[in-house]
Amino acid sequence: MGRIVYEPIGTIHTPFKTPEGVPIQSSGGKDIEGIAELHEEFQQGLSDLDGFSHVYLIYHFHLAEGYSLKVVPFMDSSERGVFATRAPRRPNSIGLSLVRVKAIDGNRLYFVGVDMVDGTPLLDIKPYVPGFEAYGDIRIGWLKRHIHKVKHFKADDRFRA
Amino acid sequence: MGRIVYEPIGTIHTPFKTPEGVPIQSSGGKDIEGIAELHEEFQQGLSDLDGFSHVYLIYHFHLAEGYSLKVVPFMDSSERGVFATRAPRRPNSIGLSLVRVKAIDGNRLYFVGVDMVDGTPLLDIKPYVPGFEAYGDIRIGWLKRHIHKVKHFKADDRFRA
Repeated sequence: MGRIVYEPIGTIHTPFKTPEGVPIQSSGGKDIEGIAELHEEFQQGLSDLDGFSHVYLIYHFHLAEGYSLKVVPFMDSSERGVFATRAPRRPNSIGLSLVRVKAIDGNRLYFVGVDMVDGTPLLDIKPYVPGFEAYGDIRIGWLKRHIHKVKHFKADDRFRA
Repeated sequence: MGRIVYEPIGTIHTPFKTPEGVPIQSSGGKDIEGIAELHEEFQQGLSDLDGFSHVYLIYHFHLAEGYSLKVVPFMDSSERGVFATRAPRRPNSIGLSLVRVKAIDGNRLYFVGVDMVDGTPLLDIKPYVPGFEAYGDIRIGWLKRHIHKVKHFKADDRFRA
């Protein structure tokens, strides 16, 4: 299968105009509010989402250019395989954040848990359902020694093109 | 921002040749094994992933054609907004599954938790890290009355084009 073409369903608005200073994960931005604004033609697709406390936002890292298969992630000083990180400069620059829904009003979804830059193109929204998710023991590889830092870390410029 | 173009990084191999009978969520396929096979050029990106017990697979629902903003999901008899469901016929047909890593060997990631059809184009892999994820009380909207069924439900043909 060759190229896959998507079109944004809307735009994510956040207080961060540049990548520097953005929390590196949504848990680090849990007090920061953002808005996922859908193009009006998609508004009807938000029905019934107000009953869910959390949703996944799937979006495009529009500032990422190119990619590396090995990256030095935030919170670490060693090179890691890019698929073992959430770094934006990936072969397909897809971002995934689990955020907390505050309210839905028309074509706007208000959320907390901002870890994306203002103007990020939104590709999809999916409900978070714990029963669909992880089971069994959980191990977190190289992140184990660093996970305590996640709430305080902010992005720097290392993933600039 | 206009069109966004991705190219598959590989292919997901599963025992399911057609959508009918596929578990509707990865938790329903937790004993079923699949393989995410990357194109060899991306193999290096899998480094360090063997320390993680779970990963997100992000893929393209290649059999979905068109979309509806309101769908009757599996496990329900009412129409719901498509973004409050995981139905494949979405404006951007992106699939997301949290699966359990069994082994990584060269360019192949062996996993359990299959809820995709054989030949699914793979777009991205991300590590699952609970500390990055949901916080606060969790509510699951319309699914609350149905969640007990998820482990037993299989797909039918309702999302065929």
